This record gives sequence, C-alpha cells and structure tokens, in this order.
Amino acid sequence: MKSDLPRLMREHDLDALVILGPDGLGAANTAFTYFTGATHVTNGTIVVKQTDSVPYLIHSTMERDEAAKTGMNLVNVADYRMPEIVKQVNGDRLAARVEFTRRLFKDIGVDGRVGFYGLDSVGASFAFLDALSREEFVEVVTEYENDILSEARKTKDADEVALIRQACRLTADVIETTRDFLRAHRVVDETLLKQDGQPLTVGDVKAFIRREEAAAGLEDPGFIFSIGRDAGVPHSSGTPGDLIRLGQTIVYDIFPRLPGSYHADITRTWCLGYAPDEIQAAYELVMQVHDTLAKAFNTERFTHEFQDMACDLFEAHGHKTIRQDLGLTNGYIHSLGHSFGLAVHEAPTMGMRGVRPDERMQVGTVMTNEPGLYYPDKGWGIRVEDDYWCNLAGEFECLTDVDRSLVIPM
Amino acid sequence: MKSDLPRLMREHDLDALVILGPDGLGAANTAFTYFTGATHVTNGTIVVKQTDSVPYLIHSTMERDEAAKTGMNLVNVADYRMPEIVKQVNGDRLAARVEFTRRLFKDIGVDGRVGFYGLDSVGASFAFLDALSREEFVEVVTEYENDILSEARKTKDADEVALIRQACRLTADVIETTRDFLRAHRVVDETLLKQDGQPLTVGDVKAFIRREEAAAGLEDPGFIFSIGRDAGVPHSSGTPGDLIRLGQTIVYDIFPRLPGSYHADITRTWCLGYAPDEIQAAYELVMQVHDTLAKAFNTERFTHEFQDMACDLFEAHGHKTIRQDLGLTNGYIHSLGHSFGLAVHEAPTMGMRGVRPDERMQVGTVMTNEPGLYYPDKGWGIRVEDDYWCNLAGEFECLTDVDRSLVIPM
Repeated sequence: MKSDLPRLMREHDLDALVILGPDGLGAANTAFTYFTGATHVTNGTIVVKQTDSVPYLIHSTMERDEAAKTGMNLVNVADYRMPEIVKQVNGDRLAARVEFTRRLFKDIGVDGRVGFYGLDSVGASFAFLDALSREEFVEVVTEYENDILSEARKTKDADEVALIRQACRLTADVIETTRDFLRAHRVVDETLLKQDGQPLTVGDVKAFIRREEAAAGLEDPGFIFSIGRDAGVPHSSGTPGDLIRLGQTIVYDIFPRLPGSYHADITRTWCLGYAPDEIQAAYELVMQVHDTLAKAFNTERFTHEFQDMACDLFEAHGHKTIRQDLGLTNGYIHSLGHSFGLAVHEAPTMGMRGVRPDERMQVGTVMTNEPGLYYPDKGWGIRVEDDYWCNLAGEFECLTDVDRSLVIPM
Repeated sequence: MKSDLPRLMREHDLDALVILGPDGLGAANTAFTYFTGATHVTNGTIVVKQTDSVPYLIHSTMERDEAAKTGMNLVNVADYRMPEIVKQVNGDRLAARVEFTRRLFKDIGVDGRVGFYGLDSVGASFAFLDALSREEFVEVVTEYENDILSEARKTKDADEVALIRQACRLTADVIETTRDFLRAHRVVDETLLKQDGQPLTVGDVKAFIRREEAAAGLEDPGFIFSIGRDAGVPHSSGTPGDLIRLGQTIVYDIFPRLPGSYHADITRTWCLGYAPDEIQAAYELVMQVHDTLAKAFNTERFTHEFQDMACDLFEAHGHKTIRQDLGLTNGYIHSLGHSFGLAVHEAPTMGMRGVRPDERMQVGTVMTNEPGLYYPDKGWGIRVEDDYWCNLAGEFECLTDVDRSLVIPM
C-alpha cells in the first residue's frame, strides 16, 4: 500500500521516483492516478522524493486548479519557458526535455538514483530515458517487474478498499437492474421480445447496461455480455445481433470503475427460464470450486497452488484444464483469479505454476475468485466471479454481494 | 493516413513495426487500436512487416474470437508455451520475453531494423527494449518524435473522417439535448431550480450529460462543464456544487469517442437568460477570431502562423496573449487548435512559434479551431471550438454543426 513507499524506496536504494503522465491517457495511466486520485489532471509529471513526504506535481497553467486539488507540491511548467529552451538547443526537442529535466531536478533537489514509472509511448520514452541515462545529473533506474509501484500496489489499504467496496456496491446494483430488465420482457418461442414485438438482442441489453453504469456514476471500460457459444469463449464480448433466448448460458462480466478511480470486477452466469441438466450440473461444480477455493484462501500458500487446487477439482470431475494444455479451448481454461485496483488486472495473480513461482497473497491483497467451464462447441460457458480482500486482521472478506442463482425465472 | 505506412517504412528504412499492447489500456493505446479498430482485443502484440500487406496479431487463446474479427494474420501466444520458456531461462521473465520474441520473429520472418510503438510502462518497456537491443536477431529502432505512426496519423482518410463525422453528429445531439435540459428548468432569483425546488448544480448537469453520452453510444473520457470563475480556467472540469445561474458564462467542452474508436471535440459557451455587455462583446471578438481563422486555414502556412494571427487579433483589441507571457492567466492563454482522431490531442497542433517551427496542415489534416478569452478574476471565460478536415480536394470542411448562440433564452 502507499504507506509502504518510503520503505520500498530505501530497500530499492532510490532517491526519487518520477511518474510520467503524458496527455490523454486518463485512467489508463494508473501509476499517475495512484497519486492524483480522481482529480482531473490530464497530464504532468509527478516526482516523489525519499526525503519529502509530499510529492511534487509538475503541471500546466491551464490545469492549475485541478493540480491544486491534489494537495501536492506544485510546479508550473510554464515557469521553465520551454520555447526558449528549445531555441537554446537549436530546435532539438529531446535535448530540450533533458535540459528541462536537469533544471527541474536542480530546483526541487533531486539527484542520485531515480526510478521511472507511468505509461508512455515505448519508442519516445525509451529515447528520452536513453538520453537521460547518458547525463551526469541523474542515474536512471528502470525495473522490468517487481518495481516499487507494482510492489506497493499489490496490497490495498482501508481507504482504497472503501472505494473498491463502493464500486462493487454500485456494480451489484447494475447487475440486479439488468436482471430485472430481462425479466420484464415477454417470451414467445423461448425468445425475449421487446414492446414493439421485435426480439431483444445482446446489443439492446448492452446499451441498457451502459446507460445504467452511467446513471450509477460508473466509468465503463467495456464489459462482457455474451450468450450461448460466445459465453463459451471467456473474452468474447458478445455478438450484438444475438437473440436472448431461454435455457442458454449468459456470461455477464462487468468491471467498471469509480470515475478515474478504483474498479469492481464481478461475473454472473444466468440461464433465463430454465437450465438444461448438463449446464445445471456444470454450474454446481463451478460453484463448488468457487466456494472451496474461497474457504482455502490464505497467505501461506503460493498463489499457483490455488490454481492447482481448482485444476484438481475440475479434473476429478472429468474436465480438461489449462495445466494439461495451454492452448485448451474446452474445459477450465484460464487462471483462477487476479488482483485489481486502479487497473482491472494487477499483481498478484493466481495462474499457472511456473509463471509466477514465488507469489503469495498477503495482508491487503484484493483478489478475484473466478473459476469457470467453457464448451463453445456445445454452445455454453460458465464463470462466477467474486472479489475478496485480506483485511488487516488477515481474514479474507468477500467484497461482493450479488445473488448467485443460475436460473432467472421468467 | 494508413495507406502512407508502406512508404514511411521504406523512407525510415524499417523492416517491421512492433506495436505493444499490454493488458488493460483499452482505447488509451491508440497505436494499438489504429490497427485493431473498435474490436475488443484487450491485449496482444501487432507486427507490421514491410513485405506483407496484412499485419500479424499475437493474441491469447481467450481472445481468439475478437482477434479473428480484426482480419489480421493470427498467432496464438499459447503456441509458444511461455511457462516452459520461463523454466528454460531459470525463471528470468525478462529473458523469457526476449526468447519468445526471438522465436516469434523467426516464425513470422522478421529481422533487420524494427521500430517499437504503443503504450507501456516506461520502466518495463525500457528494460525490455534495452535487453532486446543487445541481441543479434533484431535492430531495435526508437524515435523520440515524428515516428512513423504519428506521421501516418497526422492525416485522416475518408473512412476515418466518416467515423469522426459520426462522433461529431452524436456529440452535437448531446449538446443540443443538454441545452434543452437546461431550458426546461424554472428560474427563481436568477438560479435554475429542479422539480423538487432544490437548485440545479454543475454535478446534476454532468450526471445528465454522462447518461446522454451513454444513451448515444459514446464513450466518455471526461468533459468540461464549468460556470463563472471556473469557466475562466480552461481545463477546470467544473465544481460539482456550483449553482447554474443566469448571466454567467458556461464553458462546455465535450470530446467523447465512438466505442474504442474516433473522437469528436466541440466546445460551446453559453449564458443562460442574458449576457452582460462585457461578455457579449468578448464573445463577438472570439467568434470574429474563430471565423477569420477558419477562413484563413490553408496548407501553405506554418501552423504557428495561425496562432500568431489569433494573437494579433486579440492583442489589437487590448487582450494579453500567451505569446507575450507563457504563464498568462488572463486573456488568450492557449493554442488555437490541435488535431485529434483516436486520441483527443494529436499532431499537428497550432501553438507557439518555436515549439513546432516546421509544421504545416496538409490534405487529410483534422484540426480544431478553438480561440478563447479567460478572465477568472472577473468570473468568466469563453471558448468556441469546431472541427475541420482538409479534404482530398484540399478544402477545409467544417465537421461540426451545433448552434453557436451565446445566450440561451430561459
């Protein structure tokens, strides 16, 4: 969590962190919003010094109001007169940026080992950091993984979880409202019809869900609402023209965020009217795996051991699993779960042994639990996903509260 | 435009482009969506070879359906058995990624000079490209600016502009609906009241706008709806608790996109009921600058010459401008315009002489025209923004059609 940063900076021997925040990335630049919060700062640079408790925000004049809301130490980039610097270095804008960085670091007292974070175009940022690393005034530090920010963000504090809880509550409301919306339709020949007599489509339902998210004040990064065969392909987002028919599985995986802030991540599988026996049995197995794993969650085992436990259970019931075949398309074909926060996928994950051999959950971990079974050729898929937090007492609390019934009576 | 890529690759002597598409970046990774379109591929890698007309998409098994919709050559990353590669290099995941890249490039016939694009964490991507650049099988090319993709994206073809037009049309509808929504309120003591007698706030209007965007099928990356003093600070997004009062300027700057696709960018300034004389006069000047510049747009002059023309006009009427003082907060304090497309801000821009001394508009350029005046201490700001395209006949067409009246009668 954020309070770990001073310790992590000392351990990684970093004098400062620089978080780049180029224009237009919005909530995608989670390393940047980790510090600015939901404040609408659209671009800038953040500098965190080991010796100062409050970070610096280098911002534009146009955004001085939004910048002030962050409570950070403010530096207006206009004070550095970039056009003059560009002129001094004969129009070489890369050299100008290096020179600007030199002056900035001098003014706010940054030197030594500096780690670079945030999102940027890979070519442009490589060229910038490569040029900077040839300068004397700073030692550029980059980490391929397990960098300080990912490390800090592996655990969430109570303030962060309060926001995740709020996102989960609002998302649960959207899910319940979607169910009510479906139930309100009449059924002819096992097909849901709209008031005008036309069949209800996946596209219609998705438009309804988007409006409900907006009404709830949630930002929508996309969601999955797929039926039948599409439900059998985990990341198929659904075919707009598909009809909503009884007895088919609907996989509804929705992961919106509070504006510029924390996500929820919830999946429900529904059959309208009735569920065929095969699907009912498979659903009960998925829920058995789900409940068994939720009870098993602890901070002692490696995360891949939970994935192994899920594979054991599915294989014992005759299903193929991803640990037998990485390219599997029928059976249990993905990871058991992943952390999330400002991003939908964060570390740690609960995936295959060998990919992350040494990862454990710990106090503060937020984790999804989302076993599933997929048989696209038979025309169905099932996934049920809830979110858990290992609270400060070391107990795994469920953050999501949405009815788990497979069948929605029509 | 995209059809320029083969020529640009030859000119930059690049054998291939690699566009990184890490998980979770969505529409923010515009270099990636430039190739995938609005298809919901959430992660992968794109390789564009100079010798092949169809790019390659390296995707996960879970996303095989979405990947297939792109029409690209498909490579399933599962075929490379990453956990086995990780094991072979003793758990070093950076080395494993380099080894995976070696095998991939061999299989799809990539060697020589390869440019790297797309968004990624700057630290991780630097470490990866740095490791890759020490290998024999590829020459890593990075460009700080004027890279191939930015260069191609400086101009838009008719297909892209059809999408921008559609976004502009839907956005215009949202703006008109917002005006109708405001007009439907009753006024007591110059303040708009809701049906329950409570005053209407900026927060209420913003919630309405978000619902309208969702209903129109537009994705909302945030927008500006600010009144009074906040309208005097160009990028203030507005204070939720502010009341909607007559005779105050409202700056309404809205730039949503078609889902995962192209943006619109439109600003209107409104005064409800009436406009004070000072504001009316300033508005007429802003519109005079707007119209003069729209007529002046051509592909011969440097873009900063249009900014100079706008500064000339404002200064002639006694306003200070940003070319006199980069940190200016009262007067004309920003650039005249910028291009946009998959991102809200793209090259070229029409900013200060000296920052981009050699940039011109050309056939295919999409450009905003958005002069404004800002006096936060007097409690007002004005900006009017429309979008133009230099069509294939070399004429500047206006893409936006929204009433420009300052005063909304109540």
